[in-house]
Amino acid sequence: MTAMDARRRFLLFLAGALLSGPGFAAAPPKKKAPAPKPETKTRVVIQVSDSDSKRWNLALTTAKTLQSEYGEEKIDVAIVALGAGINMLKDDADVSNRVQSAIARKIFIIACHSSMSALNVTEDNLGRNVFVVPSGAAEIVKRQRDGWIYLRP
Amino acid sequence: MTAMDARRRFLLFLAGALLSGPGFAAAPPKKKAPAPKPETKTRVVIQVSDSDSKRWNLALTTAKTLQSEYGEEKIDVAIVALGAGINMLKDDADVSNRVQSAIARKIFIIACHSSMSALNVTEDNLGRNVFVVPSGAAEIVKRQRDGWIYLRP
Amino acid sequence: MTAMDARRRFLLFLAGALLSGPGFAAAPPKKKAPAPKPETKTRVVIQVSDSDSKRWNLALTTAKTLQSEYGEEKIDVAIVALGAGINMLKDDADVSNRVQSAIARKIFIIACHSSMSALNVTEDNLGRNVFVVPSGAAEIVKRQRDGWIYLRP
Repeated sequence: MTAMDARRRFLLFLAGALLSGPGFAAAPPKKKAPAPKPETKTRVVIQVSDSDSKRWNLALTTAKTLQSEYGEEKIDVAIVALGAGINMLKDDADVSNRVQSAIARKIFIIACHSSMSALNVTEDNLGRNVFVVPSGAAEIVKRQRDGWIYLRP
Repeated sequence: MTAMDARRRFLLFLAGALLSGPGFAAAPPKKKAPAPKPETKTRVVIQVSDSDSKRWNLALTTAKTLQSEYGEEKIDVAIVALGAGINMLKDDADVSNRVQSAIARKIFIIACHSSMSALNVTEDNLGRNVFVVPSGAAEIVKRQRDGWIYLRP
Repeated sequence: MTAMDARRRFLLFLAGALLSGPGFAAAPPKKKAPAPKPETKTRVVIQVSDSDSKRWNLALTTAKTLQSEYGEEKIDVAIVALGAGINMLKDDADVSNRVQSAIARKIFIIACHSSMSALNVTEDNLGRNVFVVPSGAAEIVKRQRDGWIYLRP
């Protein structure tokens, strides 16, 4: 074995030791744990932008089904109403009972203020515990950037 | 050259060899390949939730166009039907031929069982080789979490 | 100290030096900076695939609202028209003024050529400064893969 060979073998051993990490038993260099996944909880933002009670019912059913499939504590669901979808959240809408029952199950129900103004809907016209945000579209974009998954039933 | 200098130079050489990897020609230390990008294959999940054959045709055309644009082996396309979209997958739907031809081109066609029950549609009413999942919405959410891109034509 | 101990200590020192990087003061191995976050600018791609001027107006309002909420220089907004949505971009569409005013505000307006062919719409029929892409769906998929957020009003 030449000196060169010896050095090469040593380097290879060393490379192996350093790169394999855990195999370097005596005192493994502290390896940074892999960054935790950004979220484990599934989060879904559902958009309603139609003036159509079939669509409203589908959105509410979708929210409910997701909660059942995942388990209430493993998923966050938000429904954002904008455009003509705002009418879904009025306290005299034909789905108002379902909306309230969704809120009782901790589904976030969110109204777009900008659409409310366009449709002359005030906060007084909305069912109880409906959140109001300045822009429903901006809210959906923000939530998507935060990792929420978008559904548009 | 002092002993200290020599050691420093050796360390630097070593650091270079280890870090640059491929430059260490004689017998490159096995470097873990950089983690592959989560997917290189493009994957698209298309939702159909309308009872409207124009929409069904648009969904099928979209799937076909994506396959042509990307090349069949470079893209996975799934169409998930839920709500009234289920009717698209019945074996007597007016797009049933197009659905079967999509399946022949390896597009996944998936029906929401929960919507099927609501609409009194059984598996016997569906075209051949249509997959059935408990919840279409949960399926779309799951696929999005796995990196599938969402389209809602 | 045995020869083995000495070698182990040397390896540990070396491992520390290489792994800790910045602590190796004399000539720190160049550490790659952590990859910058893919984008700080928010980018939103809005799909229009309906033949319905209410929907067209909602898409245009959504684009405008997002620009106001974020500030024009902090957000890129693209509207992609496909399917029957193409009619929105014709120079005689009832929203053509709003489309041109969106373009003036640097909103990208994009037409799907494949849908244009299907509807016998030529580039001459489109308003000024509308981009044309081979496939609107492929364009939306590509932008989503590049980090654009998808909205389907």
